[in-house]
Amino acid sequence: MPSDPVLVIGGGPAGLEAARNVAELGTRVVLVEARQQLGGTPEADNYASLTPNFEDAGDAMRRMAAAVTGNPLAELRLNARVVRSERAAAGFRVTLSGAQGEEALDVSAIIVATGFTHFDPASANQSYGYYEFPDVITLPEAEKMLKEHRFVKPSTGEAPERVCFVQCVGSRDRRIGNEYCSKVCCGVASKEAIEIRRLLPDCKVTIFYIDMRMYGHWEHEIYWPAQEQYHVNYVRGVISEILPKGGRLIVRGEDTTMGRPMEIAMDVVVLSVGMVPSAGTKEIGKILRIDQDKWGFIATPGGALNTVVTSGEGIFVAGAAAGPKDLEDSVSMAGAAASKAVAFGRRRALAAAR
Amino acid sequence: MPSDPVLVIGGGPAGLEAARNVAELGTRVVLVEARQQLGGTPEADNYASLTPNFEDAGDAMRRMAAAVTGNPLAELRLNARVVRSERAAAGFRVTLSGAQGEEALDVSAIIVATGFTHFDPASANQSYGYYEFPDVITLPEAEKMLKEHRFVKPSTGEAPERVCFVQCVGSRDRRIGNEYCSKVCCGVASKEAIEIRRLLPDCKVTIFYIDMRMYGHWEHEIYWPAQEQYHVNYVRGVISEILPKGGRLIVRGEDTTMGRPMEIAMDVVVLSVGMVPSAGTKEIGKILRIDQDKWGFIATPGGALNTVVTSGEGIFVAGAAAGPKDLEDSVSMAGAAASKAVAFGRRRALAAAR
Repeated sequence: MPSDPVLVIGGGPAGLEAARNVAELGTRVVLVEARQQLGGTPEADNYASLTPNFEDAGDAMRRMAAAVTGNPLAELRLNARVVRSERAAAGFRVTLSGAQGEEALDVSAIIVATGFTHFDPASANQSYGYYEFPDVITLPEAEKMLKEHRFVKPSTGEAPERVCFVQCVGSRDRRIGNEYCSKVCCGVASKEAIEIRRLLPDCKVTIFYIDMRMYGHWEHEIYWPAQEQYHVNYVRGVISEILPKGGRLIVRGEDTTMGRPMEIAMDVVVLSVGMVPSAGTKEIGKILRIDQDKWGFIATPGGALNTVVTSGEGIFVAGAAAGPKDLEDSVSMAGAAASKAVAFGRRRALAAAR
Repeated sequence: MPSDPVLVIGGGPAGLEAARNVAELGTRVVLVEARQQLGGTPEADNYASLTPNFEDAGDAMRRMAAAVTGNPLAELRLNARVVRSERAAAGFRVTLSGAQGEEALDVSAIIVATGFTHFDPASANQSYGYYEFPDVITLPEAEKMLKEHRFVKPSTGEAPERVCFVQCVGSRDRRIGNEYCSKVCCGVASKEAIEIRRLLPDCKVTIFYIDMRMYGHWEHEIYWPAQEQYHVNYVRGVISEILPKGGRLIVRGEDTTMGRPMEIAMDVVVLSVGMVPSAGTKEIGKILRIDQDKWGFIATPGGALNTVVTSGEGIFVAGAAAGPKDLEDSVSMAGAAASKAVAFGRRRALAAAR
């Protein structure tokens, strides 16, 4: 009872794992990726290593891609996008647009894995000076330097003596409308802090935070080693302002544990920017006519007990297209979405055969 | 190409969702549950409502159970346990022991969903007086009262005027060897605090915490409403001692935000006990001869990018049997484990047919 293939939209960790699972269930799958490369944000944004296990991000993404490209039931469409979708008797007729023009495709079910993008500090107020001061950078910019096994002060190219991370930039912030916590930034900042300390043992690294959200095993896998083994300095505080002074950056705020104002000179300030929906996520929701939440993430009306179901029958979601997710979430959701998508196609095919 | 059924061990949220997914993929499934009832810990421990969505826990578990019992491809074995397992050509031969004696079963793959149990404060030091003072209770004991729509001071049966939660009991605690964070207790305590405030609008409710780990959407779905709408009082502090005084409990510790010692009288103290492996989880790892971590949770050597694979080929894990997990984790892992288990059986059957 062969049915039409499942369509997976997005070739990052969630999309790759979803496509792999569909193919391993014996169902054909077509994976559409807008970029030339598989690997999603870890690949596009030059991740050095993954949180929490420090595995080389390039190796990990290549391994995940190989599990898809090595399966004869999986087909790729790189440099391609879904531009239209109509419901059909057996599922959906979607139109892809790519280098070779348009292609119509009949698919049995759809998995959306279009991911997130990093919050742009320019979209908030300018209190952190991201566009004014070259030595104020973001988590992915730090990640890119770490991938090249160097970490410098951008304005001089020299090794910094003092680096700090400012948590919750673009998250937990009602003024800009991002009330949610982005879930992974505490872990990612701690991972990067460890990597900076490994590269530059004389560099002092501080993390300014509200709550360290090192849930589950991140607590002892990252948070404790960061403090005890790598001597990363965690300061519970609120940063209100960053100003230049004598070639350095003055970080002003309040140490909320000590209950006193603080003013500390730093060479590099890393803004721990959170997750917002990617352009692809915002767009695909409209094309597929499925509900999105107020931020543009794909809505999951099934809640905690039905994590991958969208408002559209036969359309499932995996990973950060559905909101802030860590890699474990993305991979587990991908497996679940594959299971539900194949089951949906099977049910439709059974009904049609009757 | 019909293969032997998949065996799912455990009838809580993860096991039910795994069994449902296997059956919906067109594969037979046998669900073994040690208790007489399906529904796992939410059912056994009388959960009032679920975190984060406040859905009635009984309704939710009945709905999940019905999705399994209503599928003709699913068979139940209640009051039964796996007592032996041997590898066989096509998968496994397992022996169940139940009310009707022993039963041998050939299965193609196994999903372990044996869950967690709540940390027992008696297993730590006695500084919180759980076994000395009747008004010191645990999260599940509070939950049970909330399910009955009453919340009283156990020693008198009267409505309390002041209630506090003490976070991280049995978690993030190296002295007792539980270094991990149990992930859900911040959310569950906040949910219970809201329920207490709904029942007893004059009762003052305080949560003593180290970090509020309200990741992702829990931030605005629970944490902000708890503070703004229900006026739950969050105090960042460390509780060192609980002592009786004049019919109340004196909670002694340090307010780490204000940097000063505190001593507050409470009517009821709720210990936010974390997750430890259930007896069933500790036992099944040995019976199936798969690796367990130092706490007894089922090890997942694939890490963040392969969340449900155990050290045993063809044996998968879902939910809190694998460590601290919230409901979303459990349900997503269950779908992923179902996908991998069915794919494993399919691969074996294909190989055997050659």
